Amino acid sequence: MKIRYFDHAATNPLHPEALDAMMPYLKNEYGNPLGIYDLGQNARDAVEQARQETALLVNAKPAEIIFTASGAEANNFALKGLAMARQNDGKHLIVSRAEHHSITNTARSLEKLGWVVTFLPLDKYGTVDPQAVKNAINKETTVISVIHASSEIGTIEPIKEIARIAGERGVAFHTDAVSTTGNIPVDVKELEVDALSMSAHQFYGPKGAGALYLKQGSRILPLIYGGIQEGGRRAGTENVPAIVGMGKAAALAVREMDARAAHVKKLRDRLIDGLTKIDKVHLTGHPVNRLPGHASFVVEYIEGEGMLLMLAAKGVYAASGSACTSKALKSSPVLLSMGVSSSMSHGSIVLSLGMDNTDEDADVVLAELSAIINRLREMSPFAKSGWGELKEGE
Amino acid sequence: MKIRYFDHAATNPLHPEALDAMMPYLKNEYGNPLGIYDLGQNARDAVEQARQETALLVNAKPAEIIFTASGAEANNFALKGLAMARQNDGKHLIVSRAEHHSITNTARSLEKLGWVVTFLPLDKYGTVDPQAVKNAINKETTVISVIHASSEIGTIEPIKEIARIAGERGVAFHTDAVSTTGNIPVDVKELEVDALSMSAHQFYGPKGAGALYLKQGSRILPLIYGGIQEGGRRAGTENVPAIVGMGKAAALAVREMDARAAHVKKLRDRLIDGLTKIDKVHLTGHPVNRLPGHASFVVEYIEGEGMLLMLAAKGVYAASGSACTSKALKSSPVLLSMGVSSSMSHGSIVLSLGMDNTDEDADVVLAELSAIINRLREMSPFAKSGWGELKEGE
Repeated sequence: MKIRYFDHAATNPLHPEALDAMMPYLKNEYGNPLGIYDLGQNARDAVEQARQETALLVNAKPAEIIFTASGAEANNFALKGLAMARQNDGKHLIVSRAEHHSITNTARSLEKLGWVVTFLPLDKYGTVDPQAVKNAINKETTVISVIHASSEIGTIEPIKEIARIAGERGVAFHTDAVSTTGNIPVDVKELEVDALSMSAHQFYGPKGAGALYLKQGSRILPLIYGGIQEGGRRAGTENVPAIVGMGKAAALAVREMDARAAHVKKLRDRLIDGLTKIDKVHLTGHPVNRLPGHASFVVEYIEGEGMLLMLAAKGVYAASGSACTSKALKSSPVLLSMGVSSSMSHGSIVLSLGMDNTDEDADVVLAELSAIINRLREMSPFAKSGWGELKEGE
Repeated sequence: MKIRYFDHAATNPLHPEALDAMMPYLKNEYGNPLGIYDLGQNARDAVEQARQETALLVNAKPAEIIFTASGAEANNFALKGLAMARQNDGKHLIVSRAEHHSITNTARSLEKLGWVVTFLPLDKYGTVDPQAVKNAINKETTVISVIHASSEIGTIEPIKEIARIAGERGVAFHTDAVSTTGNIPVDVKELEVDALSMSAHQFYGPKGAGALYLKQGSRILPLIYGGIQEGGRRAGTENVPAIVGMGKAAALAVREMDARAAHVKKLRDRLIDGLTKIDKVHLTGHPVNRLPGHASFVVEYIEGEGMLLMLAAKGVYAASGSACTSKALKSSPVLLSMGVSSSMSHGSIVLSLGMDNTDEDADVVLAELSAIINRLREMSPFAKSGWGELKEGE
């Protein structure tokens, strides 16, 4: 059976050129970058080259890139590290309801340490209102974190406007750019952010590599203390092969971004056009300001997991909500905040596209998903009578 | 020039069988373990097999293994997570002066959050006295962390005795077993520890993979919050290739440990015998209770870095103190705590052995290092007159 992978928001295959770049560091070039000898120097040089390549991807200086092991680590590091470094200035944080769990759960952990957290609501498209950010800032506010684009709904947030508001008030601003970096242009200078998280496997780099951009001069406390790696800001022997792979993937993304975005956008729009023609299937997230490879829906009267299993049986691999929460089977806080009802949110399905997807893939998923929705609705006691009080907006 | 690598305490080459095991997960098996489809299930199965293999290496249950990205992360997670989970019971911690910076600097960060930390002294062999641990425990003590063996001096600590004392007083006990796991038998049940850190690249596994053993039922708070990975205890998309490599390396270590230890022990003893015959070259660490592949010395009147650079020019790659601190050029706190003078500590050299080292390597390093010591001493103004007040014990 031919596999059609529509879960690129969860992870991506490693680019063969990135793997090629990694191979020497998985074999003979195994030195510890702290070694005083050639083998160490080679590893050090490789890490620094990757730092330059990664910096270039987001228009940062190399010294502003701190490698981590994942986007989640970068998010924890950013929110906790920025807040801890400013705890004498105040203990109020602002995050949005569109954040990934690695931000919301870190915020919750800071609440237990005495911080007060404001969670900003979303409009029906999942957008954060910059004016709401402005209104939420008080004298105690030290850090604001708003996601660049949610991998659940695809909506791209007005980061530049929010960052400017934060900057005007002297509040540190972080954005979780895990789903955008490498996929759409991300320019830390243009966005005017103080910190920005990214993850290599979101742009065909390896798992096990992420980074935090931290603006020169910004104060932060480490999340992982220890040796002098990453300027003393993130300890642990560098994962040299993964960092090299991230650098190579970043360089490839710089070169190929436009072509990749055009490819997936065409497929995305085909999926959105086709699926929203089905009765009671709604696009989630913003119709225009959205990730080029991201198509997300709620299907009334149907459980997302049922659709996913039936799609998987046809070789179509997709997701329901964010990968990190899909097992939890709770209603998505992001969808709830957008006004989607709890029951309807269970019918969530996310089709995220990549370079391996073809026009034929899109046709197949449209045909298969239509058939599956019909079949599941025939089996559903709700489909004929409606869910009554559980429907959206009631 | 033939390279002779004597810095296995810093890092090791990846075992070719571990790399072979990783390759499918760097290529076609790229699924996110949270995916509901086959590609996700395959990744999930691979992670769980690696968990079993890693558990077997330390005689733990698979559910007691939490994968991390490094030993440093495991150490930060353990000390902070155990302390934070017990903050209502008291805020006193005990660590030794033999700890890696990932423990001591984490302890320092907890001091800033209100914890009181007792740093236990070392005897002249770098050993922690279990009786001193007992005496340091008070009603507020919640966590004790003592390293299994220091990668700087090789001394194996009396973990079982210390863990028993902690257990009798109801205090959580963690050991940093990064330098021992995979190299000598490590049995969490026999050691009676609550938590234990390990790192894959210390036993021919990949960089980017570590683990924390956490005894079933032990309370801990996450270091990295987010998704539901690792039972909600450590968020972030699993670095599947590295975890698979760690599992394979663990399985290989179980099989080959005795032969490996015998091989490096023979070379170690040859180095110790040869080098301690040179005037004013002293073994550091314990003469008997030490890592089988670890030979460490202080050379009077000489800077370690000078020796390292001259050795490197001959193709011999070694270290001066721990890899994570070697660039800092400060006196080693471990050596100072053992009574080595500050100036003498600068003449530290560590030769750590691995499977790639041969008898010939040992002969070469003995000959080269003897010649280098002679040459450097001829150039040293201190060598003839002595350092006077700076010498050991004065």
